[in-house]
Amino acid sequence: MIIVGELINASRKAVGEAISAQDAEAIKKLAVDQHEAGANYIDVNAGIFVGQEAGYLQWLVKTVQGAVDAPCCIDSPDPKAIENALSVHKGTAMINSISLEKDRYNALLPVVAGTDLKVVALCMSDEGMPETTEDRVKIADQLINDLVKNNIPLDNIYVDPLVQPVSTKSTFGDEFLNAVDEIMTRFKGVHTICGLSNISYGLPLRQMLNQTFAVMAIARGLDALIINPLDSKMIQNLIAAETLAGRDDYCMNYLKAYRKKKFE
Amino acid sequence: MIIVGELINASRKAVGEAISAQDAEAIKKLAVDQHEAGANYIDVNAGIFVGQEAGYLQWLVKTVQGAVDAPCCIDSPDPKAIENALSVHKGTAMINSISLEKDRYNALLPVVAGTDLKVVALCMSDEGMPETTEDRVKIADQLINDLVKNNIPLDNIYVDPLVQPVSTKSTFGDEFLNAVDEIMTRFKGVHTICGLSNISYGLPLRQMLNQTFAVMAIARGLDALIINPLDSKMIQNLIAAETLAGRDDYCMNYLKAYRKKKFE
Repeated sequence: MIIVGELINASRKAVGEAISAQDAEAIKKLAVDQHEAGANYIDVNAGIFVGQEAGYLQWLVKTVQGAVDAPCCIDSPDPKAIENALSVHKGTAMINSISLEKDRYNALLPVVAGTDLKVVALCMSDEGMPETTEDRVKIADQLINDLVKNNIPLDNIYVDPLVQPVSTKSTFGDEFLNAVDEIMTRFKGVHTICGLSNISYGLPLRQMLNQTFAVMAIARGLDALIINPLDSKMIQNLIAAETLAGRDDYCMNYLKAYRKKKFE
Repeated sequence: MIIVGELINASRKAVGEAISAQDAEAIKKLAVDQHEAGANYIDVNAGIFVGQEAGYLQWLVKTVQGAVDAPCCIDSPDPKAIENALSVHKGTAMINSISLEKDRYNALLPVVAGTDLKVVALCMSDEGMPETTEDRVKIADQLINDLVKNNIPLDNIYVDPLVQPVSTKSTFGDEFLNAVDEIMTRFKGVHTICGLSNISYGLPLRQMLNQTFAVMAIARGLDALIINPLDSKMIQNLIAAETLAGRDDYCMNYLKAYRKKKFE
């Protein structure tokens, strides 16, 4: 399971304030805490700062990588901001995200084409949010083919089939899960990724629903997640689910986590 | 989700003693508690009492149905004991279980053929325990076809693909889950059922692993479970997972459970 730690996002009040105040220690602490909790990538997002995003994003990358030895997931639709961030990034970053929306696609393709960057490919097009499995797989198919043609290897593509709330339509969870399954089956070697929180929008006990949905998505083949890695029950669920899904030889990761008291 | 409450099993020490002592109140309490917690069927098993199983099983059915308005799941390989229990059973019982093992199959087929009984069809043959998805689907295919030919409708067949421990082989969970998926896809209208506890055999924190595996099995299509319904975290997981899997119109069951404080 590839975990992207989502906490360094300017839309979170404390983080937005820390960025404004250039409070490097607060950002570093979030980076270290997430990395120690298991995040493979540290998401950085400064999207709320119109006109200042590029500068802040670069500062976030430098600050995060000054504290942890991990790549960032650069979370922006702006190619200039991304390139500015990449200019100081060490190692191989993940870009979150390209989509089939024409403007976004055209802006981001030149940034990622022919590179070894990891690319989140969001199943969204100018026709709006996908509702069915078929909608999602159709967009994924086109995105994957286009990206591969542009010399991005399948192993660097992380398809996000786009989670929508079950409170809006009861079948939205199922449609998403079927899409994960079909994408992982049809495009062997590609990854699937998602943020979970939309699934529980409008319902009580959202955290518990998100934790449960993560387990279900793993059962259908999902192999990457954008989450809050400080949610210890979420991390426990991921470890257990991967062991039960056959992704943990000799249950070694599970037993190691147990001995490290990660389940307490 | 169809829940079979597993607690009235003579191999559990307290239950074996209650049966020996003909302690009807103890059995009734277990029946009521399980039924109130959501069990649709109350499993009754007196297998440890060689020579007395038939009498005890009949007594269990009468005792359980004297306390709750619910059918039993009659858990025995002995056709005489089953028929004895059925003679006093009200409503439509479930029989647990027929398999492809020749002796067992030949003994139980006459009991269930042409009836409206629910039948658990265990994926086990004289070749031993199935290991792969293919092994399971092959046995399921033969059992389903044979049962349908003997006038048991698909909707009354509950295929148990047989859970085996991930501690024995890391892929055993995955092979089981793939089998559930394939059986539910290939034989539209059939049910899948299982007991969970074998999955976690030999590992620490078994209850948590079982609870997690239940969610994964639901994500793959499983629609019946033999569990301890007094495990409230298990019940919470089932409710959440079914809502997220699109089996809960307008999230009504989830919201009802929430209002009834089932998540506290």
